[in-house]
Amino acid sequence: MKSSQSKRVSVDDLEALVRAALSRAGMAPDNVGPVAATIVACERDGVKSHGILRLAGFVHSLKIGWADGTARPAITSETASLLSVDARNGFAQVALDVATPRLLAMAEASGVAVLLTRNSHHFAALWPDIEPFAARGLVALTCVNSKKRMAAWGGGRPVTGTNAIAFATPRPGHPPLVWDQSSSVLSQGDVLLAANEGRAVAPGVGCDAFGQPTTSASDILDGGALLPFGGSKGASLAVMVEILAAALTGGRFGFEDQSPAGPTTTSFGGQFLLLINPGRAQSGFDERVSVLVAAILDAGASRLPGDRRYRQRRISAAEGIDVDAPAYASLLSLAGRSGGAVAQTGGQVS
Amino acid sequence: MKSSQSKRVSVDDLEALVRAALSRAGMAPDNVGPVAATIVACERDGVKSHGILRLAGFVHSLKIGWADGTARPAITSETASLLSVDARNGFAQVALDVATPRLLAMAEASGVAVLLTRNSHHFAALWPDIEPFAARGLVALTCVNSKKRMAAWGGGRPVTGTNAIAFATPRPGHPPLVWDQSSSVLSQGDVLLAANEGRAVAPGVGCDAFGQPTTSASDILDGGALLPFGGSKGASLAVMVEILAAALTGGRFGFEDQSPAGPTTTSFGGQFLLLINPGRAQSGFDERVSVLVAAILDAGASRLPGDRRYRQRRISAAEGIDVDAPAYASLLSLAGRSGGAVAQTGGQVS
Repeated sequence: MKSSQSKRVSVDDLEALVRAALSRAGMAPDNVGPVAATIVACERDGVKSHGILRLAGFVHSLKIGWADGTARPAITSETASLLSVDARNGFAQVALDVATPRLLAMAEASGVAVLLTRNSHHFAALWPDIEPFAARGLVALTCVNSKKRMAAWGGGRPVTGTNAIAFATPRPGHPPLVWDQSSSVLSQGDVLLAANEGRAVAPGVGCDAFGQPTTSASDILDGGALLPFGGSKGASLAVMVEILAAALTGGRFGFEDQSPAGPTTTSFGGQFLLLINPGRAQSGFDERVSVLVAAILDAGASRLPGDRRYRQRRISAAEGIDVDAPAYASLLSLAGRSGGAVAQTGGQVS
Repeated sequence: MKSSQSKRVSVDDLEALVRAALSRAGMAPDNVGPVAATIVACERDGVKSHGILRLAGFVHSLKIGWADGTARPAITSETASLLSVDARNGFAQVALDVATPRLLAMAEASGVAVLLTRNSHHFAALWPDIEPFAARGLVALTCVNSKKRMAAWGGGRPVTGTNAIAFATPRPGHPPLVWDQSSSVLSQGDVLLAANEGRAVAPGVGCDAFGQPTTSASDILDGGALLPFGGSKGASLAVMVEILAAALTGGRFGFEDQSPAGPTTTSFGGQFLLLINPGRAQSGFDERVSVLVAAILDAGASRLPGDRRYRQRRISAAEGIDVDAPAYASLLSLAGRSGGAVAQTGGQVS
């Protein structure tokens, strides 16, 4: 994927630039870390659709006051297994960061922890939210609702977000097994990437503003609707996410998002997270996951979710990350740097 | 759908016959109720694929000793929010019945209840397991793994079950909003029904024993594999179900099911159930669900999941259930009745 126009940057240097850009946009020092981490994780792992491509959206949302970079999340209620957090118009990653010590304590004591975050912005991939929990031995399920972009149950107009769901499980001797998927055939990020590159998308991905099928990524983004994967089955998942992440949390539904039109503002909704501690449930869990993964590979699976990310992560750690030149220039500009200091002309990624 | 060969039977009479059939197959009196209820609920609500069509499978599994109709479930561990149950080779519905009082108490106290059932047979629809919880005001998510029938993540051979997931939420002024869907394009029950009727299934539903695409329901059932809905996305859900319902519970994976070949034995695996009490999370939940449903309908949704079931349920309560003659004869035979006493020649269902 590397072009001669790309720049190679180390993971640490990329993180410093992203942090600088968020700080420069008005984000409070305590809040910068969790948001920068999720953007850098995606770029580092080759998930370009959710990497620094999205930084401008974060920055824009902060600058126009749509999201509050200075808000500190408030814990509004707590039981033995249920934690409700009001992100107060800040980012979901900050709320998760604040909630994490309590969630870990709940999972240790009762075996179960549920986080309900409301009034939160989530504009990133979901897997970075849960991979760390699985790395600590917990099974994790999470979902976020997002601004309306998708039709449901045979409707022709958008009503739910693409409403991603992510799941992670520990896997002994390996990084966690993690998947993260939107409820749409294609994620909003991928459609955005296609539109930016002038590429068409496959039939079945979406419809235009008149409810007609189209392969134009721009037409889908411009007043049309994405379609759920698996027809009504994907729609069922998306509606479940609206219930879990918005109705239960007290957050806004996808169709209540009042953000300025266009893809450059963050989605304001809620997040649901479930953690289960296998140690409180049944012994031998780790070994059982190994048995399952072996059987899946033996049945001919071409690859496991996350394989590509983990491979790219190792390459990025060893050799740095190739960022294409326009994205890099934008990053430098957002970070207030004149450029050149941390950049090198990239070589071939092997 | 009614033919002149069908018999009309009341819901109560159908339940009496199903109970008699299960008792006659050796099921203990305390265990009959929850299993009969799920079979009757499907037949009553028009879900023929999971109604009395499956009774012969239950009975056969009991008679050959594959499932134990006399087993009483054992609670093996309990925290503030997590209950582990060993069904001891009995039916999952019996384990759920035994667990329900404790789950309700957990949901009341901590807002969250998780049930992990292992060593259980589940051969029925999932929605009857959770609709009652939603009718009591709880949000419910459940899944069961089942014997291997489906390929995963690009593999050509079966490794997971069709691994159904069901979700239910209270809906003020209406019966709960409930969906129940397999992780395959088509459920095993629907493929079985197609095979019984000699019908072909749509392309993409499955492959044959050689991993080749086929539209023959029989070829899919006979050593082939079902395919997940949404490609890798449906496979991700199915693998998650193996983790939640088997690895976490201590149950068997789909590929470890050692049941005799063919569709006439029950699946031996585990069940995961999550309950969340909106009353412990956020006020105004019910009203928010109403707002969501109104928006979905306003965006052109053709119908809500469950609509057809609830409509058929009202008809069945008022007019009885039309059962086709061969199924009815089989039911009478399994129940040890000579026939005629509770049957009437059916009229037209309006």
